[in-house]
Amino acid sequence: MVSSSLSPNHILSLSKSATTTDVFLPFRTPDSAFLRRSSLSSPLNLKLNYCSNLARRRLRVSATAQVIDQSPSKTTPIVPTIVEVDLGNRSYPIYIGSGLLDQPDLLQRHVHGKRVLVVTNTTIAPIYLDKVVSALTHGNPNVSVESVILPDGEKYKNMDTLMKVFDKAIESRLDRRCTFVALGGGVIGDMCGYAAASFLRGVNFIQIPTTVMAQVDSSVGGKTGINHHLGKNLIGAFYQPQCVLVDTDTLYTLPDRELGSGLAEVIKYGLIRDAEFFEWQERTMPALMARDPSALAYAIKRSCENKAEVVSLDERESGLRATLNLGHTFGHAIETGYGYGQWLHGEAVAAGTVMAVDMSYGLGWIDESIVKRVHNILQQAKLPTSPPETMTVEMFKSVMAVDKKVADGLLRLILLKGPLGNCVFTGDYDRKALDETLHAFCKS
Amino acid sequence: MVSSSLSPNHILSLSKSATTTDVFLPFRTPDSAFLRRSSLSSPLNLKLNYCSNLARRRLRVSATAQVIDQSPSKTTPIVPTIVEVDLGNRSYPIYIGSGLLDQPDLLQRHVHGKRVLVVTNTTIAPIYLDKVVSALTHGNPNVSVESVILPDGEKYKNMDTLMKVFDKAIESRLDRRCTFVALGGGVIGDMCGYAAASFLRGVNFIQIPTTVMAQVDSSVGGKTGINHHLGKNLIGAFYQPQCVLVDTDTLYTLPDRELGSGLAEVIKYGLIRDAEFFEWQERTMPALMARDPSALAYAIKRSCENKAEVVSLDERESGLRATLNLGHTFGHAIETGYGYGQWLHGEAVAAGTVMAVDMSYGLGWIDESIVKRVHNILQQAKLPTSPPETMTVEMFKSVMAVDKKVADGLLRLILLKGPLGNCVFTGDYDRKALDETLHAFCKS
Repeated sequence: MVSSSLSPNHILSLSKSATTTDVFLPFRTPDSAFLRRSSLSSPLNLKLNYCSNLARRRLRVSATAQVIDQSPSKTTPIVPTIVEVDLGNRSYPIYIGSGLLDQPDLLQRHVHGKRVLVVTNTTIAPIYLDKVVSALTHGNPNVSVESVILPDGEKYKNMDTLMKVFDKAIESRLDRRCTFVALGGGVIGDMCGYAAASFLRGVNFIQIPTTVMAQVDSSVGGKTGINHHLGKNLIGAFYQPQCVLVDTDTLYTLPDRELGSGLAEVIKYGLIRDAEFFEWQERTMPALMARDPSALAYAIKRSCENKAEVVSLDERESGLRATLNLGHTFGHAIETGYGYGQWLHGEAVAAGTVMAVDMSYGLGWIDESIVKRVHNILQQAKLPTSPPETMTVEMFKSVMAVDKKVADGLLRLILLKGPLGNCVFTGDYDRKALDETLHAFCKS
Repeated sequence: MVSSSLSPNHILSLSKSATTTDVFLPFRTPDSAFLRRSSLSSPLNLKLNYCSNLARRRLRVSATAQVIDQSPSKTTPIVPTIVEVDLGNRSYPIYIGSGLLDQPDLLQRHVHGKRVLVVTNTTIAPIYLDKVVSALTHGNPNVSVESVILPDGEKYKNMDTLMKVFDKAIESRLDRRCTFVALGGGVIGDMCGYAAASFLRGVNFIQIPTTVMAQVDSSVGGKTGINHHLGKNLIGAFYQPQCVLVDTDTLYTLPDRELGSGLAEVIKYGLIRDAEFFEWQERTMPALMARDPSALAYAIKRSCENKAEVVSLDERESGLRATLNLGHTFGHAIETGYGYGQWLHGEAVAAGTVMAVDMSYGLGWIDESIVKRVHNILQQAKLPTSPPETMTVEMFKSVMAVDKKVADGLLRLILLKGPLGNCVFTGDYDRKALDETLHAFCKS
């Protein structure tokens, strides 16, 4: 049985073979991928140091085949790049490549039971829902797929919308052996993941991210949740998917603003831990903005490798993982204070990154050249470099007070420190520097 | 800072010393405590066999001092009985005894951070909130306690009420280093636990159960969650507390119906895995109903030992743990179909147990003598032995279809099989027997 509010019949014929051969190539570290590992100095002050051999050993990349610059073929399935997130018995692969939604076996090997619920939104459903249902059911007649189509946008990432997922799952009488599939951007992935974590106290879960933001960041690492009107992502769970399937073809339909928003997170990886990746981005930003497939594929892969390594080392954010939130504390304040959905997440993060960089410079922790390079690369990505004019110092302080990185009343921030590609996660900074940055970027 | 809607000042002077000495006695298996361990035969058909030595080895009981029949003393703190729930790095103690809320150290050793949120209800708050706040803050001036007082009853175990907990936590600017304390019965424990699991993706959590039901069952084992209007506990998480503190003095204020409701779960442990405990209950039920302190203390301890052992062996209910749900599938249907809060949980479980026993007898799996003994003991506990008259076969079937124990469309049930104290968790039964039981207990 297949039901959805979009179409009476989602079972389409596939244009290519549903049975594929997966080729796992040995891992070769690309020259441009310079990995780095962090060492904890104290819970409140975390320095990132160069330690590439250790990092290489921990990061399990099963295949590094270049895939995006190959044309899809009806007879030869494309070999996906696979980045493995190493979490013991909760490890899972990230498949990256063009045309992966035309390889049903990739998805089907991760489906548990006979019932699937696809959670998607009104923007993505008309474009990709049929394709995903086909991939789930092709050659697999025992599987039935339900779908729930949510309104699109960060402002709907709340309990009311989440309840629609539970309603659909319960009305459809799904049981513990079902699988939830998130098809969409970060909002869909976060909500579907939290629903999967909570439905019957936990069911199987697959991520199919369709935005750069979700492909490089939010779909990887198991952070799920919803917003509260007083703050972002305050209610949720750490809950890992069975796999993440990144079909880079889905980016063809991505609006320009969404592309830039995702690149804000790509830039983040370079700034906090991967200087060579940042330098590659500086050279390649025009190609990325022009959606050059191989440039985008490399940016996604390298970002996923960085994220997978950090998550493997610190799944529940006791320290290192917090560094992935560079710019996010300021950014969340913008999203919450300015209204969810006014700015895209990556746009708020971009402005927040500029503020974090300004504060790092104010503390004397980085050279002016880094400040300039950050401005420059964000401008190339057509991202904002200051918060909305309506944001006040008080709005920032009020939202930042409920940030998840506050501990025993002390706000810890991710700030750059040292040469490009190094950061700290610390509550040990001069409060004046924070005030100065807030006043520098707010009119009142 | 201490705030609550009950009183401007929760800091009371304690009547006894706040510093206590804990004496851990070596474990001695009481003659009357005959433990049993289960072996999995198949996911769908699970038989419980005698294997007491193995069980003794796994069950870590640190102290078995008789505590209830001692009078509280101002100078000599009572030594709590401790039952350990053995879950690796998520192991925790259940403290059982009289006057434990007058021993601040017991609670305080499990508090993380400086901020505590007590979640309780309108019935319990006037009686015990001050006492708990005192226990949390006595000699501990750096700790501040917030409280949220929810309406009392199963019908409020829903998302709207849960949001009040999040609202309070966020408005109070609690951070990840805070501790949630559940003070109340099963509804409060389940909701507070799920809130703790979800707030900032997980914070520290302590259970202080104040009903027999919560003390012997719901506060132990980490099942948390809320109801959906279509079924019980369909949304939640497995989330273990740091400790469970059972102050048996709280039972002095428990209404008679609540006492009986809790005893339904005590009876369950005997039926599914502990025949000697059941026989002890048959002899002791008049004393339990008369609230004899030592009888109640033993019933609570033995129940917690049974539950701790089952949870240690199968935390996430892949098989064995499901047997703790004897009578619950029918019982949940009564609670959902008849309206949450019309019957207490244990009352519905009692009627459900009679139905499960009837079906087991119909299948030829147990002797008639067991059927009679179950009726008899439930009647002694003043519990119902049949569902409400308004329940129909269709109402049962409709709710049972969304039960969490349905797998790939097949409803699995816990049924008695063999001598007293043995059960199976199985989907391998004659459907006619289920129909016959439903028709025997419903008018239409």
